Amino acid sequence: MTRLRLGVLISGRGSNLQALIEATADPTYPAEIVQVISNRPDAAGLTRAEAAGLPSLIVDHTAFPDRPAFDREMTQALEEASVELVCLAGFMRLLSDEFVDHWRDRMINIHPSLLPAFKGLEVQERVLARGARFAGCTVHYVRKEMDTGPIIAQAAVPVRADDTADSLAARILEQEHRIYPLAVRLIAEGRVSIDAGDRARIADWPTVPGVLLNPPEA
Amino acid sequence: MTRLRLGVLISGRGSNLQALIEATADPTYPAEIVQVISNRPDAAGLTRAEAAGLPSLIVDHTAFPDRPAFDREMTQALEEASVELVCLAGFMRLLSDEFVDHWRDRMINIHPSLLPAFKGLEVQERVLARGARFAGCTVHYVRKEMDTGPIIAQAAVPVRADDTADSLAARILEQEHRIYPLAVRLIAEGRVSIDAGDRARIADWPTVPGVLLNPPEA
Repeated sequence: MTRLRLGVLISGRGSNLQALIEATADPTYPAEIVQVISNRPDAAGLTRAEAAGLPSLIVDHTAFPDRPAFDREMTQALEEASVELVCLAGFMRLLSDEFVDHWRDRMINIHPSLLPAFKGLEVQERVLARGARFAGCTVHYVRKEMDTGPIIAQAAVPVRADDTADSLAARILEQEHRIYPLAVRLIAEGRVSIDAGDRARIADWPTVPGVLLNPPEA
Repeated sequence: MTRLRLGVLISGRGSNLQALIEATADPTYPAEIVQVISNRPDAAGLTRAEAAGLPSLIVDHTAFPDRPAFDREMTQALEEASVELVCLAGFMRLLSDEFVDHWRDRMINIHPSLLPAFKGLEVQERVLARGARFAGCTVHYVRKEMDTGPIIAQAAVPVRADDTADSLAARILEQEHRIYPLAVRLIAEGRVSIDAGDRARIADWPTVPGVLLNPPEA
């Protein structure tokens, strides 16, 4: 089996990196991580990459004169590793339009809301302030405008009356760790296409074709 | 049992009116419809009101010089019927700030999206164009800005690959017909309060206090 070659970009703890590490540890999983890049030398996720024996690299954004130069360095490292799909996993740098264009339809992100609701940062604080009854997460292809782009997978969770931003984020994170590897699998299996309306279409979805509700239990 | 006195405002088919008619037909339900008002003489929902023997009234907005005059006429009719809670049910007129203020925390609406996503009109067309995997509906108190206001209840439904705006709207409508009577019940039972952050808090929610996921099966 040829496995899809993943490059994972992190800035912090890398919990979604860990979810991908665990998924790719299964030899029947159709993707493998071939490069981890952190823009921060102190990212805890680097330890996870090391522990898993994965090639990791620090591309410290503070060492570059501007965003495009930083992004070119990342692209070079990703291409040297023959990365086919870039997975943003808590990567906290805005990307240049050139980088986004270069990796168009080959770069995905996970965002802790049911997009298009609650784009941006401090999501769960805003969910609670709004009194929404549902929260969730979204895996999507990356487009120039932040937190837009074709939606591959979403999962919803209830908001509880006694939730704090932290407790809600933790509940969502559990779902992130399920749907990110699932979305990568769908892509690696060639089941995701992007239609003329810039929507991601999923072929042969097990229960409901093309639809992801909460992902099926393992 | 004293029942909460409802005024229901409609413009069209009145399917949510019908859901409320059916809920209130149960003598143990803690609310009753005491006035139905349509701004359109030809609203099909008027037939439903008649069939249920409910007082109904046409307040034709085209007969009034401006919005405040129209709204005052509605307030007068609602107050003559001693309405305690105004339920917008497909009422397609913008309301004046005065009307919204007058009925503050005593007027609710149902909107066919998981607010704050997809405010406004042609909701399901936009859900499909965005490729969202979840859609839903929201019962909320009415504030001056459209489709804002404290959220009382929400329900989520999956978006299917072969959905049209109509098929998706129909799936959501089923949930609307469940959560609108449920939200009215919660209010009638005195279990909904609005906190300092303008959020609706639900007391003694059967399964998860204060939280509405999909409402429990009847």
